[in-house]
Amino acid sequence: KLAINISGRRFETWKNTLEKFPETLLGSNEKEFFYDEDTGEYFFDRDPDIFRHILTFYRTGKLHYPRHECLVAYDEELSFFGIMPDLISDCCYEDYKDKKRENQE
Amino acid sequence: KLAINISGRRFETWKNTLEKFPETLLGSNEKEFFYDEDTGEYFFDRDPDIFRHILTFYRTGKLHYPRHECLVAYDEELSFFGIMPDLISDCCYEDYKDKKRENQE
Amino acid sequence: KLAINISGRRFETWKNTLEKFPETLLGSNEKEFFYDEDTGEYFFDRDPDIFRHILTFYRTGKLHYPRHECLVAYDEELSFFGIMPDLISDCCYEDYKDKKRENQE
Amino acid sequence: KLAINISGRRFETWKNTLEKFPETLLGSNEKEFFYDEDTGEYFFDRDPDIFRHILTFYRTGKLHYPRHECLVAYDEELSFFGIMPDLISDCCYEDYKDKKRENQE
Ligand SMILES: [Zn+2]
Ligand SMILES: [Zn+2]
Ligand SMILES: [Zn+2]
Ligand SMILES: [Zn+2]
Repeated sequence: KLAINISGRRFETWKNTLEKFPETLLGSNEKEFFYDEDTGEYFFDRDPDIFRHILTFYRTGKLHYPRHECLVAYDEELSFFGIMPDLISDCCYEDYKDKKRENQE
Repeated sequence: KLAINISGRRFETWKNTLEKFPETLLGSNEKEFFYDEDTGEYFFDRDPDIFRHILTFYRTGKLHYPRHECLVAYDEELSFFGIMPDLISDCCYEDYKDKKRENQE
Repeated sequence: KLAINISGRRFETWKNTLEKFPETLLGSNEKEFFYDEDTGEYFFDRDPDIFRHILTFYRTGKLHYPRHECLVAYDEELSFFGIMPDLISDCCYEDYKDKKRENQE
Repeated sequence: KLAINISGRRFETWKNTLEKFPETLLGSNEKEFFYDEDTGEYFFDRDPDIFRHILTFYRTGKLHYPRHECLVAYDEELSFFGIMPDLISDCCYEDYKDKKRENQE
């Protein structure tokens, strides 16, 4: 099991859950840069609520878009963790695109 | 009291709260497969936010549908824990059905 | 400071914050029934997310209604903690009433 | 790293993250008043969910408005931490203003 600390909120997951997507930050060795030997956790100064969706992505392969979050805030978290927005699942992609269009007007 | 760890978030509940629904994962012996002797917790690599509604179901017998969550994500959590969507309570069932219809279009 | 454990999520507040509303469960001696000597916490097998609004009520005297929560679930938490829905603040009362009317149709 | 306890929920961030905005409570020495030597944490009896957006502000310089929160509750948290609402980012400012107008009617 791995421990991931997101701005103080502790997440735990199986190591192989993360390895499914080797081209992302958490799926690659890049994450070792954020490892804290004192606590045995990976520490990221990022948004703890949005991170839930990022962890779900590793677990299920599905990336959901939380409708009540600011799109810009969501995009920034995806970008930080090296996940492309075009990976957003069918169930959430339309709502994401709609919100994006709204924002650009 | 039982401790349930959902991807790092700790939940606690009374043992008999879970026993009310013996045909579900948490209400049956099936959950012992997820018991971690080192921590004394049941560990599930699942969504910690949606789990709140699952625990409420055991506590009150009412299954609520969180309107801001993706329906597919919610359905997957119910399915994992062995809870049928037709158990969703009257107060939330119509909104759930509406969302379902929307998604299928 | 007091520690309150809501289904595993830990809340802390000042003792005198709770004493402001002596006719409610947390403001009265009634809460001692839920005190756990082993952990030094008050333990309630209740909804941890909705509890945030209950604690805010003690702190600010304002009771807010979370628009994305099921009304029935919210009402049940208020009722358990002995807080009357007519204490909901002006800023949230209209939305609460609207939702209530919708539900009764 | 600094530990900030918001009504029992633990947040952690880098010290220099907070120093970016020296005219706010957390960016200034004013916060020392809330330091608890026993726990090594800064303790604030405030809303833990809304605090997420305040921490994101220090981290990214962007202040987002959570659409599902009561505007009055949000404004009170900003005010407590000494952050002016006109710092709300472009991505969220219009929705914030709309909600404000609605509330004043
Ligand atoms: Zn989805
Ligand atoms: Zn409901
Ligand atoms: Zn309000
Ligand atoms: Zn925003």
